[in-house]
Amino acid sequence: MLKMGVVGFGYWGPNVARNFNSTDDAKVVSVCDKMPANLKRVGKVVPGALTTQDSSDILDSPDIDAVAVVTPVSMHFELARRALTNGKHVFVEKPFTATVAQARELIDLAEKKKLLIMVDHTFIFTGAVRKIKEVITEHELGEIYYYDSTRVNLGLFQHDVNVIWDLAPHDFSIMLHVLKDKPVAVAATGAKHVNDMVNVAYVTVFFEKATIAHFNVNWLSPVKIRNTLIGGSKRMLMWNDVLADDKIKIYDKGVDVRSTQSIVNLRINYRTGDMWAPRIDGKEALALECEHFVDCIKTGRKPVNDGHAGLGVVQLLEACDKSLEQDGKIVKL
Amino acid sequence: MLKMGVVGFGYWGPNVARNFNSTDDAKVVSVCDKMPANLKRVGKVVPGALTTQDSSDILDSPDIDAVAVVTPVSMHFELARRALTNGKHVFVEKPFTATVAQARELIDLAEKKKLLIMVDHTFIFTGAVRKIKEVITEHELGEIYYYDSTRVNLGLFQHDVNVIWDLAPHDFSIMLHVLKDKPVAVAATGAKHVNDMVNVAYVTVFFEKATIAHFNVNWLSPVKIRNTLIGGSKRMLMWNDVLADDKIKIYDKGVDVRSTQSIVNLRINYRTGDMWAPRIDGKEALALECEHFVDCIKTGRKPVNDGHAGLGVVQLLEACDKSLEQDGKIVKL
Amino acid sequence: MLKMGVVGFGYWGPNVARNFNSTDDAKVVSVCDKMPANLKRVGKVVPGALTTQDSSDILDSPDIDAVAVVTPVSMHFELARRALTNGKHVFVEKPFTATVAQARELIDLAEKKKLLIMVDHTFIFTGAVRKIKEVITEHELGEIYYYDSTRVNLGLFQHDVNVIWDLAPHDFSIMLHVLKDKPVAVAATGAKHVNDMVNVAYVTVFFEKATIAHFNVNWLSPVKIRNTLIGGSKRMLMWNDVLADDKIKIYDKGVDVRSTQSIVNLRINYRTGDMWAPRIDGKEALALECEHFVDCIKTGRKPVNDGHAGLGVVQLLEACDKSLEQDGKIVKL
Amino acid sequence: MLKMGVVGFGYWGPNVARNFNSTDDAKVVSVCDKMPANLKRVGKVVPGALTTQDSSDILDSPDIDAVAVVTPVSMHFELARRALTNGKHVFVEKPFTATVAQARELIDLAEKKKLLIMVDHTFIFTGAVRKIKEVITEHELGEIYYYDSTRVNLGLFQHDVNVIWDLAPHDFSIMLHVLKDKPVAVAATGAKHVNDMVNVAYVTVFFEKATIAHFNVNWLSPVKIRNTLIGGSKRMLMWNDVLADDKIKIYDKGVDVRSTQSIVNLRINYRTGDMWAPRIDGKEALALECEHFVDCIKTGRKPVNDGHAGLGVVQLLEACDKSLEQDGKIVKL
Repeated sequence: MLKMGVVGFGYWGPNVARNFNSTDDAKVVSVCDKMPANLKRVGKVVPGALTTQDSSDILDSPDIDAVAVVTPVSMHFELARRALTNGKHVFVEKPFTATVAQARELIDLAEKKKLLIMVDHTFIFTGAVRKIKEVITEHELGEIYYYDSTRVNLGLFQHDVNVIWDLAPHDFSIMLHVLKDKPVAVAATGAKHVNDMVNVAYVTVFFEKATIAHFNVNWLSPVKIRNTLIGGSKRMLMWNDVLADDKIKIYDKGVDVRSTQSIVNLRINYRTGDMWAPRIDGKEALALECEHFVDCIKTGRKPVNDGHAGLGVVQLLEACDKSLEQDGKIVKL
Repeated sequence: MLKMGVVGFGYWGPNVARNFNSTDDAKVVSVCDKMPANLKRVGKVVPGALTTQDSSDILDSPDIDAVAVVTPVSMHFELARRALTNGKHVFVEKPFTATVAQARELIDLAEKKKLLIMVDHTFIFTGAVRKIKEVITEHELGEIYYYDSTRVNLGLFQHDVNVIWDLAPHDFSIMLHVLKDKPVAVAATGAKHVNDMVNVAYVTVFFEKATIAHFNVNWLSPVKIRNTLIGGSKRMLMWNDVLADDKIKIYDKGVDVRSTQSIVNLRINYRTGDMWAPRIDGKEALALECEHFVDCIKTGRKPVNDGHAGLGVVQLLEACDKSLEQDGKIVKL
Repeated sequence: MLKMGVVGFGYWGPNVARNFNSTDDAKVVSVCDKMPANLKRVGKVVPGALTTQDSSDILDSPDIDAVAVVTPVSMHFELARRALTNGKHVFVEKPFTATVAQARELIDLAEKKKLLIMVDHTFIFTGAVRKIKEVITEHELGEIYYYDSTRVNLGLFQHDVNVIWDLAPHDFSIMLHVLKDKPVAVAATGAKHVNDMVNVAYVTVFFEKATIAHFNVNWLSPVKIRNTLIGGSKRMLMWNDVLADDKIKIYDKGVDVRSTQSIVNLRINYRTGDMWAPRIDGKEALALECEHFVDCIKTGRKPVNDGHAGLGVVQLLEACDKSLEQDGKIVKL
Repeated sequence: MLKMGVVGFGYWGPNVARNFNSTDDAKVVSVCDKMPANLKRVGKVVPGALTTQDSSDILDSPDIDAVAVVTPVSMHFELARRALTNGKHVFVEKPFTATVAQARELIDLAEKKKLLIMVDHTFIFTGAVRKIKEVITEHELGEIYYYDSTRVNLGLFQHDVNVIWDLAPHDFSIMLHVLKDKPVAVAATGAKHVNDMVNVAYVTVFFEKATIAHFNVNWLSPVKIRNTLIGGSKRMLMWNDVLADDKIKIYDKGVDVRSTQSIVNLRINYRTGDMWAPRIDGKEALALECEHFVDCIKTGRKPVNDGHAGLGVVQLLEACDKSLEQDGKIVKL
């Protein structure tokens, strides 16, 4: 039985705690939060867990095997480092860390100590993303031409991070998970209208090959849009995550290019066939993720969302900030 | 009665010819196209018009008062210059010209000759865009924060221009028409997958103030999306042009910022009120535009879509190409 | 402090219990269910409540002021009668009773004993239905022409009632609540395909005046549709309850009839104006309903969803069954 | 070359004339309409055709092989009878005739004279309906449980027929075409609000087996809905005809019934699988229908939409009127 401590019990912490507690072979034994009001809710969510306002009660406790860090990103590094130093596996909220250097240091530390890091990229455990991964891996879309995501709504303005750090980690982690190729550069533009944080932003991600990815994130949209288009040489996919049903549609559409007499003379043929909406598994993503954490610790397997996956997202985020400061100048990764 | 010649009778030429011919005080007397097959259709569209494969029959004719140039963009400059030189008003398909220099030269020539140039920015005559212009002008949205347009579908690949030159002139002309402020810089990213033309592209347009605009254009989308979000300090607007009804929705949504004790401490309040879909006038845009052309010639008024409007679009397009070549580097206008 | 007992703790009972318990001035002190597995969940929902498998522990207890009956409809009458007989107010799940005669007997009994009956027509406490009621009461739609509801999905087949008894009570209670006029007759058609229960049905409700209402209920639809159209002489309303936002749209559309020379010669003019989606209050309906129950007991006010409202629904249901048996023959109420 | 006359050149007549004229082996030689204004448009649509205000010029002409009757329904019988009597094939607008007796008389007459009758059930030639027919014929839906159609909009009020005669012929002809079984009875309810014509109506159609069909037609809806659900024992289909793409969706959803110990104890299992939107052929329905007419005359084949198909629709319409007059009483066919 894995004994876990949870540091941070605000909005997302209770979900993490409940799901770990529901996992066979894991048990949340202690919860830390600085706000007494938050700690009051612990009893309902994970009955029997100890509560504390001092994170050392968890990080330094010899009775705790693993720590879930569910705090603002600025605290991830210190908390995770101390947990690892003290021999505990860590589950860290996304984005993994505030800088690439921090991510690298944690990865090194974990490897040295033979401990496991998992970054909470919940979305890659949803039925929708698992289906997209499967479809792309089985080459049903062919070569990937573009990945185009829009994630906008009238959102909660964050005071400590901009809209890219708030919303894009979801999409970056999904893209890195489902695409085989790795990004090589980033260009980001954006604007501030309300406070000192960029609240609308547009990110282009470049790859070695002709694949291009784009992310539209916005805290000031009147409507909620969660739409991802993935275009391939064979088929195209649309994932509309605000729909209750048929979230993923695969279109047997595309163009075929045939060279005619000369290489200059290309004829483009358009294909329009059936559309197909595969059934999506409805299992709760966070529950599967928590099981994966426990399972990887037991078996020694590497999590799909390990520290390197977390690092990949932080690299993109850091590059976005550099590009934003230079009005969209391309930043190599 | 304004006697008109039409040069170019492919896909769009017949629509232009029919609408000019239906206008009181204008009459299409001659049509030119290089393809005999195209000329065969002239009789049905503008009965009685002469047909020719030689554009000089129109451009040099003393009997023609105005010329509509409905050819590929590469020919706009030469045809329009000759028509203006010969004392004829010109109606030119969008985009106005292939370069900023050409646009400037035509504008100068027309001013010297006291002739009129109209660029076929049809969209600004649609009921939807006229309503958006009205809503913004009457300050119903407040200060404009962002203009975010997506125009994608499985489109006809062009062989002579990239996807920005093909699709974005619509959106650039609309944006320049409805926003009071003028753009100052552009950043564009994109990729080629099928032939030598960029077929998916993302354009950010910057303004003096904090307004930001963005354009997502794509020839390889499985679905047709024509969606524009305009966010303002007071309200927000969504224009979904693929809907048959209620294309424009105005949301009484937004954020209010109140400084509390200090300038550092801002409190953000979210407002969510009614949504309102104003009735859209259904008159055919091209018919209104043709009437506007004839009316401006008669009255000496300046068209809303004159050469300067056309130049504005070409400036953006040219800057996009420069930015594309430099992987998204910002290009000043 | 109103001390309440809850009889029935299956699917809906826990919601009722939790909401009553969250109401100021009410407290759930005892819960009954025949299934021990159901009773196990009581502690989490209403901590501290007693549990029992014997409903007499609640119905005969001198310490309980009011009873919520959340059982299958066949048991409503016996349980409610005994509670009223023993001087307790009752909150009864919809539909109120299995027969009109039972409903009348309970109403009489409650009046004699000066006790309150509330029937759980939750929907009339939703923001959407409250807005519809307001719009109709303020005569914004004009004279009501029709009320047309579709409520279909791949539903849970019931074993004890047909699809009309399962789904239509929602719509009947809403219609009776928002329309001023009262129905006078019913015609219902339907079919059985899976078990011995009608699983798809169509109900027409007639009124004194020309108003007509229609209900399409179906357990075997591949998609979930919750759509109600209400047409009036001045405006028309659509309520699409599966949407997350803008559930209610009011269309300034309609026809005007003008007699010309003679009464025979009518000219019909079509009006098409703006559409308007009023903001909907998001308060939880069941919480408002529970507060209303407690408030009515304290103040002696009559609930909007009292026994007579429940009777109205049962009258329609009973008439539907009679009409179904006669292949759609009209049945007077 | 089949020489055709067209009687009636109002709204739909020009479409029929143009399509017949575009058919190989047919030519429209004469057009009749009582309104000179309508005849003025003939030259543009079918250049070279003669025009007349007197239908005998067509019906009695020895030079005409076939007549298209595109008039109000009240005139169909007389015009078609005279055409058949004079040895001409007839193409008749839907609904075929104003009464069942008239339809029978025309069918008998055509058989005696060995002439062909085609009723203009255009919809059955659309790609969507051809696909539905194919899907049902290949037993992909299994046994058909229900056919549920909604066809409503803010429609043009007719002065000579009610909303059922105006809108339901489309749906009746489609249903009769795609379902193997034949209807046995009808129940219809409705109401009048504007003039003396029923403008909103609900029709249930019964079959020998448990199949049930329902039709919701309304001239006073604020929105245009064209939705048909077809539920089967194996799969379910939704046809949303207002969509530009993916009009037909086939859902691998349903219920399986398994008897357990006894016949009374049924366990119902729900199946939810993929959804599939087959590509729909986009050929113009009316063009295919006109080709079918000419082809049947040449080859002696029986049209799918012959007089008997027209009769089937008129039988339903006549039964609806009888049922409407008796407040929804079931009327045997």
